[in-house]
Amino acid sequence: MQRFCTLAFVLGLILMIFGLTYALPIATSIYFDDGMTEHFLRGMSLNIGVGGLLASVTMQFRGDVKTRDGYLLVAFFWLLMASAATLPLMWGIPGLSFTDAFFETMSGFTTTGATVLTGLDSLAPSLNLWRHELNWIGGLGIIVLAVAILPLLGVGGMQLYKAEIPGPVKDSKLTPRITETARLLWMVYVAYTLLCIVSLKLAGMSWFDAVCHAFSTLSLGGFSTHDASIGYFDSPAIELIITVFMMLSGMNFATHYTALHNISVKPYSLDPEAIPMLGIIATTILLCSFYIWHFDIYPDFLSGLRYISFNTVSLATGTGYSSTNYEVWPAFIPWLILFLSGVTPCTGSTGGGIKLFRALLLWKQAGRELFSLLHPHAVNPIRIGHTPIANKIIFAVLAFIFLYFISIVLMTFTLMFTGMDPVSAFSAVMACINNTGPGLNTVGPAANYAHLNDFQTWLCAITMLLGRLEVFTLVVLFTPTFWRK
Amino acid sequence: MQRFCTLAFVLGLILMIFGLTYALPIATSIYFDDGMTEHFLRGMSLNIGVGGLLASVTMQFRGDVKTRDGYLLVAFFWLLMASAATLPLMWGIPGLSFTDAFFETMSGFTTTGATVLTGLDSLAPSLNLWRHELNWIGGLGIIVLAVAILPLLGVGGMQLYKAEIPGPVKDSKLTPRITETARLLWMVYVAYTLLCIVSLKLAGMSWFDAVCHAFSTLSLGGFSTHDASIGYFDSPAIELIITVFMMLSGMNFATHYTALHNISVKPYSLDPEAIPMLGIIATTILLCSFYIWHFDIYPDFLSGLRYISFNTVSLATGTGYSSTNYEVWPAFIPWLILFLSGVTPCTGSTGGGIKLFRALLLWKQAGRELFSLLHPHAVNPIRIGHTPIANKIIFAVLAFIFLYFISIVLMTFTLMFTGMDPVSAFSAVMACINNTGPGLNTVGPAANYAHLNDFQTWLCAITMLLGRLEVFTLVVLFTPTFWRK
Ligand SMILES: [K+]
Ligand SMILES: [K+]
Repeated sequence: MQRFCTLAFVLGLILMIFGLTYALPIATSIYFDDGMTEHFLRGMSLNIGVGGLLASVTMQFRGDVKTRDGYLLVAFFWLLMASAATLPLMWGIPGLSFTDAFFETMSGFTTTGATVLTGLDSLAPSLNLWRHELNWIGGLGIIVLAVAILPLLGVGGMQLYKAEIPGPVKDSKLTPRITETARLLWMVYVAYTLLCIVSLKLAGMSWFDAVCHAFSTLSLGGFSTHDASIGYFDSPAIELIITVFMMLSGMNFATHYTALHNISVKPYSLDPEAIPMLGIIATTILLCSFYIWHFDIYPDFLSGLRYISFNTVSLATGTGYSSTNYEVWPAFIPWLILFLSGVTPCTGSTGGGIKLFRALLLWKQAGRELFSLLHPHAVNPIRIGHTPIANKIIFAVLAFIFLYFISIVLMTFTLMFTGMDPVSAFSAVMACINNTGPGLNTVGPAANYAHLNDFQTWLCAITMLLGRLEVFTLVVLFTPTFWRK
Repeated sequence: MQRFCTLAFVLGLILMIFGLTYALPIATSIYFDDGMTEHFLRGMSLNIGVGGLLASVTMQFRGDVKTRDGYLLVAFFWLLMASAATLPLMWGIPGLSFTDAFFETMSGFTTTGATVLTGLDSLAPSLNLWRHELNWIGGLGIIVLAVAILPLLGVGGMQLYKAEIPGPVKDSKLTPRITETARLLWMVYVAYTLLCIVSLKLAGMSWFDAVCHAFSTLSLGGFSTHDASIGYFDSPAIELIITVFMMLSGMNFATHYTALHNISVKPYSLDPEAIPMLGIIATTILLCSFYIWHFDIYPDFLSGLRYISFNTVSLATGTGYSSTNYEVWPAFIPWLILFLSGVTPCTGSTGGGIKLFRALLLWKQAGRELFSLLHPHAVNPIRIGHTPIANKIIFAVLAFIFLYFISIVLMTFTLMFTGMDPVSAFSAVMACINNTGPGLNTVGPAANYAHLNDFQTWLCAITMLLGRLEVFTLVVLFTPTFWRK
């Protein structure tokens, strides 16, 4: 019982702090005079009030959260924040159901960026900013999750990254580790965000759009203030800037930190994922650019290259912006780049999917097995970079990928069971579990998730959380073992 | 060099023996007077002649095939047989290209049962019998492959089944093991085939159709003498008989042998795959029958149950017969039963896919990982039945499944690259790699593979072989390690 009160205390604190983030939409609302000020003020008060009440009631139980309760903390953090954040949306958009609002905020916090809202261009600015801010806060959470919490919990082989963060903390308790790691990496995240805002402004965006899109770029969330997404701006400069920042955000922020700290690019070459990621993206862009050139969809090779580059980077990093309706392209391209969103983002980035290191590890394991068919007695450890990987980690990674795969199969069949067509169902699950955003067909880049019924909407929202919490973190809560003793 | 001559000798012998199998279509052709006698006689002479020549030239190198050359033997066996078997088809069907003929014979030998031929009902009986005989011979080959050769080579964790066959042979040379194991299991296969022929005849088929369909049932090949497949007969009795024999063929023939040998059903309860397989099939049939009942497609629950049962067992075991165009059903059902063809067939059966024991092992590995997240120091070996499974085997299985998955992804994208639509491309790859036969959409149960261009046809034929040889056996031939020294 005491454990749960300790958890409640932490969640109460977080809820209070989250209340502070309402300041930004409140300021926006006042500036644009869009009539939402009252809603956000009410939301802020409720957050701080309820959070404060929870924290003060459980104050006597404050203390360190045990490792095992990390699973609960993480799951409740995302559920609670997403629930709380629905209030301004429901108050501000008449007729929006809780289901749809929860989908939208969960999509924001998990940096999925799928939307059930149409008419974004005419939405109150403060509500749009709110959506983008959720993306950005989600990104903060993910960095902590990926670099500090999951390695500690040992989810899906992430213990590999346990000792990698520079800093003095080698503790097994959650709190000090989170604090220290978060501080360092958040600094990078904030700095890049500011740089992105300024760059987008210089490229011609309004300050408002620059802030919103920097929020959803750095978090790889992919929300936009326009139904046409980045296609609205029709600006090669903006596309280029966003492309660069999406690539940066798809890499490990610990690598960025080390590189900035040492003023050196060497950390990127030591990062076992950075170069493979660039390689995958570059190969895909080249292949698809030549492929689409062959179809004469664009007047010349360079126009094709422009659209292919942006949308490939956007999907492969799991951002989910679009600069054109890429579904009119031959099906090979949209499917390929949607598939990439599952494998390309690096560990410790704000991206989703299985993460590149797991894909690399799987690849090497298959190679090792081929080799050992011919040399059954040779010892041949798998290495990532120069580190030999323990069997324990390989097992964890393989089990992770299997559970991820099972989730995709189960969720796809469940959506099909509810009557969704196979392409929409499968692509929606891929887009949600990889936190990408747009799928294909009825949930494609030219459409959105508004037409889903309530059950389908909940399924997709759960799938986003499942992907964001790397499957195991959520699934473990449903095992009897977790609740025993 | 000597190795290759030894191999050539074995292949020459096999080609000669294969020549003898032309006797059946020759007899059929004479009986029906369908004008194909000459073609089959010529084919027979060529096989025996070329095979005899090859064997006599390499006679001096005869001896035991080394384990490592088993990979080459297996790959060349399937390629050589499929190539040789095209001759009667090309001579007998004017205008049939080698590509299409090879697809058809490879589909036969791998017991895939996908066809490029339309107008089966009016095809010369001896040609139809030939197709079905290829299915049946393929089944013979698969039993040897799965129970004697793959375990010896150690492909994908199959070494688990190394010691399981009753019999005196514990040798590490290929030849005696094959001979002894094959003899025992082939007896069961032949006995079941005869039983199936008689049952189908009693249920109202002609002797010709009974023989053909027994051939393609026991081998889980799924070729039919009618474009409408089993739907042509519209007979519940025939469907029931075929359903029973498909289920039997989807199980381990070693279990059948032990059960028959001991006159006991206990071996089935000791077989770690038999009961899960029945469970999966029964659950699917119940679920889908109620689902389709809800849609009012059939007048009553029992009619739905009839069609669901037959087509579920047909797809789940990887046979690929259809008793109706199940693609008019809600997409959930055809996709589910197509998916099952990848996991349901048991080791040592004539089915394809990853085999049930690998799926079970993966499932248990994921469960173990979940458990060890909460109890990091507990030792918790995976067991299949009562046997604890060594890490080495688990790694092999996981690598196998990954390579299988990679193959599906690569082949699907390649087919899409050639312009095939995503549903046809993915389902064709699933249907070919799992040796099921019909896919969905343009390669669905109401269509066939005739409209594929040459490149697509070759890709599908390779995919069948890849699936049949459990991926590794074929892929290993393309590694530099294999050819070194
Ligand atoms: K996203
Ligand atoms: K088949």
